[in-house]
Amino acid sequence: MTAPYTLILLRHGQSEWNKTNQFTGWVDVRLTEQGRGEAARAGELLRESGILPDVLHTSVLSRAIQTANIALDTADRLWIPVKRSWRLNERHYGALQGKDKAEILEKFGNEQFMLWRRSFDVPPPPLDDDSPYSQIHDPRYADIDGEVPRTESLKMVIDRLLPYWEAEIKPDLASGKTVLVAAHGNSLRGLVKHLDKISDADIAELNIPTGIPLVYTLDENFEPIEPARYLDPEAAAAGAAAVANQGKH
Amino acid sequence: MTAPYTLILLRHGQSEWNKTNQFTGWVDVRLTEQGRGEAARAGELLRESGILPDVLHTSVLSRAIQTANIALDTADRLWIPVKRSWRLNERHYGALQGKDKAEILEKFGNEQFMLWRRSFDVPPPPLDDDSPYSQIHDPRYADIDGEVPRTESLKMVIDRLLPYWEAEIKPDLASGKTVLVAAHGNSLRGLVKHLDKISDADIAELNIPTGIPLVYTLDENFEPIEPARYLDPEAAAAGAAAVANQGKH
Repeated sequence: MTAPYTLILLRHGQSEWNKTNQFTGWVDVRLTEQGRGEAARAGELLRESGILPDVLHTSVLSRAIQTANIALDTADRLWIPVKRSWRLNERHYGALQGKDKAEILEKFGNEQFMLWRRSFDVPPPPLDDDSPYSQIHDPRYADIDGEVPRTESLKMVIDRLLPYWEAEIKPDLASGKTVLVAAHGNSLRGLVKHLDKISDADIAELNIPTGIPLVYTLDENFEPIEPARYLDPEAAAAGAAAVANQGKH
Repeated sequence: MTAPYTLILLRHGQSEWNKTNQFTGWVDVRLTEQGRGEAARAGELLRESGILPDVLHTSVLSRAIQTANIALDTADRLWIPVKRSWRLNERHYGALQGKDKAEILEKFGNEQFMLWRRSFDVPPPPLDDDSPYSQIHDPRYADIDGEVPRTESLKMVIDRLLPYWEAEIKPDLASGKTVLVAAHGNSLRGLVKHLDKISDADIAELNIPTGIPLVYTLDENFEPIEPARYLDPEAAAAGAAAVANQGKH
């Protein structure tokens, strides 16, 4: 098929730990009722816009899968093919997983807090394998093509994400399919950084709101023909500001 | 991997048209609240039994997909790989699709009614392409490897089902994966007929209850080592009787 290609990115709605303000990473928490509502709203936006996915890619984390299932149910596209990969997972937050964001902010100060949250290549300290928040023994990672991480920087996320973009998502786009990627704040920041050629420094300022489809129109080289657009721009602006302020209350 | 292999069959819970007693077939109706509850119960049964699927196969009909999504959410297996195929769809009910079962029973009498519902190779009259209940123009069937049916007998269901069993499900079983098939009354009757070598005459008597996982243990030739078992035998017996009595009230 010839370009342009249509790519839709969707960050999962509010999870239990978004609500309690804890670092989540690879811990497999579920959506809250509000998060389910956001997912349904995402499905309405897809339906109303007529931008309907032909294939779905998700992480292997339940909150992204729940978001996709609810959105596709609302958009009447439950039946499309699905592919899942750990390479679309949220950034592994290392020893911060499970910790209260406000407590970490208070204990370590704003500079260290923002370094862990938004620096490009500084990962938090590694998570202990004995931690209840470790994924070392999670059966979903028994056969992954790599080692289960103990921590990740955004750079490490991009390094494990891009092979999946190249091998699995690009071919679906190239075949003319509208692709929906249901994933996470940091895996989607990594993909947006790649698509929009954002510098390592500037990516710190980019926040992706939850539950609002972000639509890219790509040329034959998979480069954006025009700036990507949120299907609900006003809600997106408010949502991005909310993400930027996490922990600060 | 060596046998035995584990295969789980799951018929979707109550749909809107089960509730209103209409012939459904390929019409894409959703689960009722009761149907969602049945799906959650199926997930509990999987979790409690410890028989956890490694891969999911569904039809492309929303009620089977919803059932699988809810059951896997409850069983904490949302992350497993998924494959979907029209070959697992319910039997196409031809011109009966959308019709009230009790009205058809009254209008055509019990003999004709049971012939359409339970004969092995007599399909109902074909559905008109102009019918609102036709799937000729449904985008989910735009690329199927065959012609969108206008009606089907159980024999026709088995003829389109078995190639999928051979090509997609058996290889997953042979690789040692526990396979969950979330599908429909008649596609599952077709699969059970094949697995249990039930005669064309005797299959008329077999009714599969909704929402209760049916577990097969198969040898290296994909033949049952022992009779398949429902994870809730009492509820299964009551459910099968209810299916047998449909239309009779």
